[in-house]
Amino acid sequence: MKTFDNAMVSSHLNHVRIVMVNTTLPANIGSALRAMKTMGLSKLVLVAPKTYPHPDIDALAAGATDLIEQIEIVETLEQAIADCHLVFGTSARSRTIPWPLLDVRPASEKALQAVVQQQQEVAIIFGREDRGLTNEELALANYHVTIPVNTEYGVLNVAQAIQIICYELRMATLAYEQQDDNDAQSMPVNNQIDMHWDEPLVTQEQMQQFYPHLEKMLEEIEFLDLNNPRLLPLRLRRLFGRIQLDRMEYNLLRGIFTRVQALSQGKWKKSTDKEDQPHV
Amino acid sequence: MKTFDNAMVSSHLNHVRIVMVNTTLPANIGSALRAMKTMGLSKLVLVAPKTYPHPDIDALAAGATDLIEQIEIVETLEQAIADCHLVFGTSARSRTIPWPLLDVRPASEKALQAVVQQQQEVAIIFGREDRGLTNEELALANYHVTIPVNTEYGVLNVAQAIQIICYELRMATLAYEQQDDNDAQSMPVNNQIDMHWDEPLVTQEQMQQFYPHLEKMLEEIEFLDLNNPRLLPLRLRRLFGRIQLDRMEYNLLRGIFTRVQALSQGKWKKSTDKEDQPHV
Repeated sequence: MKTFDNAMVSSHLNHVRIVMVNTTLPANIGSALRAMKTMGLSKLVLVAPKTYPHPDIDALAAGATDLIEQIEIVETLEQAIADCHLVFGTSARSRTIPWPLLDVRPASEKALQAVVQQQQEVAIIFGREDRGLTNEELALANYHVTIPVNTEYGVLNVAQAIQIICYELRMATLAYEQQDDNDAQSMPVNNQIDMHWDEPLVTQEQMQQFYPHLEKMLEEIEFLDLNNPRLLPLRLRRLFGRIQLDRMEYNLLRGIFTRVQALSQGKWKKSTDKEDQPHV
Repeated sequence: MKTFDNAMVSSHLNHVRIVMVNTTLPANIGSALRAMKTMGLSKLVLVAPKTYPHPDIDALAAGATDLIEQIEIVETLEQAIADCHLVFGTSARSRTIPWPLLDVRPASEKALQAVVQQQQEVAIIFGREDRGLTNEELALANYHVTIPVNTEYGVLNVAQAIQIICYELRMATLAYEQQDDNDAQSMPVNNQIDMHWDEPLVTQEQMQQFYPHLEKMLEEIEFLDLNNPRLLPLRLRRLFGRIQLDRMEYNLLRGIFTRVQALSQGKWKKSTDKEDQPHV
């Protein structure tokens, strides 16, 4: 059996929040808290829960009182993930538009890596009991994550799905710490490239200003008709969602959008001197 | 996402039975059946259940009627495992006598290996809700298996433990089958990002046309001075290099560059009709 330090596990998993959207049954919230606490997670965010508070939550989360007190209630999914860098949306079925999709195990490893190597805040989003997340909600995620179950039978309920993801997050954390212990051997972590950023990554909140700016610019050059956008906005979210922009890249791209807008509006014209090149 | 053959998974997992000893709550039996069916297991043996049958079993195992019909009821644990070759006893705490102890993941891999390589029959035994398995019952097992949870908080209930073990058994089966598929190449199967793209990813060769086009466009809007580019070209390569564009995204972005160039060169002006929006 592995020996491990529960405090160390929690210090990592405190940066991974579980987000439940429009949950109907209080029992599922209670079960989620219990699963989280058992595996060492602590932060639950509820987006517009149907019933809250409710005695079933306390009953099923018996012994997880500290987690109940830390629950955050928000009105929109955007608020729930505003300060997050990396967002996973859970999805049982294939959707109309494809998205980077990870099984729960590699997704958990990726989440843990983001926390320990880059101090990122991570969110895992779970949808309604009856119909999961909408396509619009799923488009807010960098990655979609799925649990490979027997598709002929059906899907896990939300509490079961949370339990398995929390379990995999714990396993990824334990594996990371074991690897850390074996540092002398300098083993590669999951064969993934360790990216060292010179700039901090932007948050989801900043990205929610990025997309409207990009769309406005594209509308001005008539590349996008906001009254009939087709799949273009979704494609752009998928594209930039999987990059995780850093601050300098973000400023660079928004600078380009602004320049194109000025050009389109006739407010900016080519100069002969190049004094105004931005310093990047 | 991995593709897999549910029938093939079940043909292996039919040889792994779940054994529940002296279960008190029918709801736990129902939940166990649901967890088993979701993950592709089919054989449940109940040793002297306190309450059986009961409507809660059918309610919680909704859709798993075939598994209910296959339930075997026996009087003693010895009967339940009589024809098994390999037996795992689940144990939350360390017991008075030491025993070979495995975490749930390696235990599941071992179980699967026994089934596929040596046609063994395997049993995983779960104890009573309140006090688990007795030392005498645990002594009937070849190995003890444990789920590495937050020991400061407590343990999983029996239905949750069954769910996680069934999940790990399924994962072990899928990994085995993938390995089997890739036998010639003998590639490791984990940690790969599986993306469902509707479009093929572009090649590096195409990207070598992409960057000059992007730079030319940025030069035309005086965002980049090719005589003194500083770090900008490098930043753009790092940014788009980690996206891995698919063909449609690639064409979309190059279309935008071309539009901005035409705008900059005065070759394109805003129209009033929106007929020319590209079809994306």
